[in-house]
Amino acid sequence: MTEVLHPREAARVAGPDEAVSIDELALAARNHGMPLEALRFDLTPPGLHYLLVHYDIPFVDPATWRLEVGGHVSAPLSLSLDDLRARPAVSRTVTLECAGNGRARLLPRPVSQPWLDEAVGTARWTGCALSSLLAAAGVRDGAVDVAFTGADHGTERGVEQDYRRALPIAEALSDDVVLAYEMNGAPLPPQHGAPVRLIVPGWYGMAQVKWLSSVDVLTEPFTGYQNEVAYRLRASADDPGVPVSHIQPRALVVPPGFPDFMTRRRIVDAGTVPLFGRAWSGRAALTRVEVSVDGGASWAPAVLGEPAGRFAWRGWTFSWAATPGEYRLCVRAVDEFGAQPVEQPWNMQGMANNTVQRVAVTVR
Amino acid sequence: MTEVLHPREAARVAGPDEAVSIDELALAARNHGMPLEALRFDLTPPGLHYLLVHYDIPFVDPATWRLEVGGHVSAPLSLSLDDLRARPAVSRTVTLECAGNGRARLLPRPVSQPWLDEAVGTARWTGCALSSLLAAAGVRDGAVDVAFTGADHGTERGVEQDYRRALPIAEALSDDVVLAYEMNGAPLPPQHGAPVRLIVPGWYGMAQVKWLSSVDVLTEPFTGYQNEVAYRLRASADDPGVPVSHIQPRALVVPPGFPDFMTRRRIVDAGTVPLFGRAWSGRAALTRVEVSVDGGASWAPAVLGEPAGRFAWRGWTFSWAATPGEYRLCVRAVDEFGAQPVEQPWNMQGMANNTVQRVAVTVR
Repeated sequence: MTEVLHPREAARVAGPDEAVSIDELALAARNHGMPLEALRFDLTPPGLHYLLVHYDIPFVDPATWRLEVGGHVSAPLSLSLDDLRARPAVSRTVTLECAGNGRARLLPRPVSQPWLDEAVGTARWTGCALSSLLAAAGVRDGAVDVAFTGADHGTERGVEQDYRRALPIAEALSDDVVLAYEMNGAPLPPQHGAPVRLIVPGWYGMAQVKWLSSVDVLTEPFTGYQNEVAYRLRASADDPGVPVSHIQPRALVVPPGFPDFMTRRRIVDAGTVPLFGRAWSGRAALTRVEVSVDGGASWAPAVLGEPAGRFAWRGWTFSWAATPGEYRLCVRAVDEFGAQPVEQPWNMQGMANNTVQRVAVTVR
Repeated sequence: MTEVLHPREAARVAGPDEAVSIDELALAARNHGMPLEALRFDLTPPGLHYLLVHYDIPFVDPATWRLEVGGHVSAPLSLSLDDLRARPAVSRTVTLECAGNGRARLLPRPVSQPWLDEAVGTARWTGCALSSLLAAAGVRDGAVDVAFTGADHGTERGVEQDYRRALPIAEALSDDVVLAYEMNGAPLPPQHGAPVRLIVPGWYGMAQVKWLSSVDVLTEPFTGYQNEVAYRLRASADDPGVPVSHIQPRALVVPPGFPDFMTRRRIVDAGTVPLFGRAWSGRAALTRVEVSVDGGASWAPAVLGEPAGRFAWRGWTFSWAATPGEYRLCVRAVDEFGAQPVEQPWNMQGMANNTVQRVAVTVR
C-alpha cells in the first residue's frame, strides 16, 4: 500500500458574500442531519441518525463479501460475514458526529458538506472486536498505522480513490474498536455501511469507515488522501496541520415550543419551560453542561442525567423560567479539557468546529 | 371546523442573483431526499425514502392515540390503534413525491424547502381503507371535502396551525386511500407519521398527512392554509390558482459510473453502459420512458420493466454506447397526457415541477 503524496490543497473557502452553492445544496439534499427533536431517543433510529456518504452508497452482497486483513502481519486473514459472526460479539453505545458539523455557520465558510448543527446520532453497534482480529492475524513488530478501506469509490479534488482512512496502531489495538455488523440490534442498513463497518468510539465520523473491505497494517505513517488532505486541522494555507481525530465536547438542546416552518424560529409560551438535551465529548470525560438564555453572556448549570458509557451522549435537563421577549438560547458542554467556545474556532476546512448552538426563541 | 380565509400570499421568490439562504439550508439539513442510487430498490428502506416534516416530528404515544372521525357523518367514531388493526388490512405499493421536488433548480427560485431531484421514495403501506371507516361513520348527503389533521404543530407565514389538508369527497371515498400503520411490513417510523398516517396514492406528499389525529367530513370547500395558500398552483401573484393534487410524470436515472465528491459530476469508462432508473406518474398511466445523451436535443426509447401497480414506480433500462467526451444525460417519462418538459414549467411556489433530470457525465 504505497500512496502518492498529494499536495495539501485545502478545501476552497467561500468569499465573504458568497452564499451556499447548488453543489453544496446537492450534498445537503443527499446527506442529512438528525432533526434535533430526535435528541429525545437514547438510541437514534437509523433514518434519523446523521448520514454522510462521500461518493455513492455501494451495494455489497453479504453472501460474497470478504474482509481481507493483511499488510505487516504474520498470518493474513480472509473472512466471510459468517466467519465474523462466529467470533465473540461485543456491543458499544457510541455517539457519532461528522467532523464537519457546524461548518456552514463559519465565516468565512469552507466549501464542502454544509452542516449546521445536526450531524450527530447515537447507536448501539454490535460486531467483532478489531483487536481480536489483529491478534489472530499476528501484528508484527514495527507496525505504525492501520488503514481501513471501504467499497465506496469516487474522486475528490482530482484524486480517484476508494474511501480509506487510517488509525495509529495503538488506537487500532484498543479494545474499544469494533467491526460492526449490527446497528441497534438489526443488520446494518445499506447507507450505514452494510454489511460491515468500522466503529472507533470517541472519534469523528471520518474514522468510521463504512462498507469495509480491507484492513492493512502499515510500517510507515499512512499518507492517503483522507488523512493527509481531506480531514486535517489546518489553521492557514501554510500550516501542514494534523489529521482530525477525537470528538470535541458539544451539547445540543431540543428546541423548545414549536417552530416557524421557514425560519425554524421557536415560539414558546411564557412559564416554566423544561429544557432537555444531550451532551458528549470524545476526547475526555464530560464534567458539566451549562445553559444561557442571553446568547452566551451568562451561564447556569444544567442537571446531568446518568451516563450511558464513556462514548455515548448524556441527557441533561434545565428548568427555564421564561418571560415574554426575544431570546438567544445557548448550551455548552464542558469536559476535563475545557468548555465549548462561544466564538468560532475557525480552521481551513471547517473541521471539529464546536461553537455553541444558538436557538432563536420568541416567548409569548 | 371554520377556517379563517388567509390572504393568498405566495412564497417569496428569490432575486435573480440570490443564492440559497441559511434558512433554506436549515430545511435541507433536517429533511432529506433519496440518494438516487437507491432507485435500485423496489421498496425504499425508511432511512433512504425522502422525508419532509413541516414543523417538528411529534412523538405520539400509540397506547393512548385516538383517531376521531367526525363532522358531517351519522355516527362519529373514536378509534384506538387496536381498533384500527382489528379491521381488515389492505396494502398499497405507492411512490410518494414532494410537490416541491425540483424547486431549487427553478429560475427565479421560490424560497421554501430547496429540493433538487431526490424528493421521492416508494414503500408498501399497510393499514385500514379510509372508505370502510367513512362507511362505518355514515357520510351524510351534502359532503364536499374531507379534512385530515396531523399532530404536528407550527406556524407558516404567521398562521399557527396543526398541519391539515383536505381531499374532495369523491377522492376520500375511493378504495385506494389508506390509513397506514405499517411501512414495508414494520410499524411506521416516527418521522413517517407513527402511529398512523394517510396515504393517497397518486397525489403529491402534501396530501399524505402524517401523525393523523382526526378526519372531518365537511359540507363546504375546505379553506385551510395548506389547500388555500401553501400547496397551490399559481402562475402569477394575481392568479388565485388551484390546490396541488396529482403527481406529474417523472423519470429518474441512477447516475452511472462514480461521482466527484463536491460536484457530484459522474465519471464513466467508455463502452456499453447499462442505465437503470424508475419512472412514475400519479395523474395517468405511464406510456414510455426516453433517454437523451445530448441534453434533450434527441431522444431514444428505454425498455420498460414490469409494472408494480398503478401507483408504484416502474423500472426501465437503456444501453448506452458511451464514447469519450462530456455529456448531459437526460431522461423523461411520458404518460397518457404527455411528456415531462425540457424547459421548466415555472409557478409562484415551485410546485409540481417536473422538468427533466440532467446528469453531467464525463466519459473517459
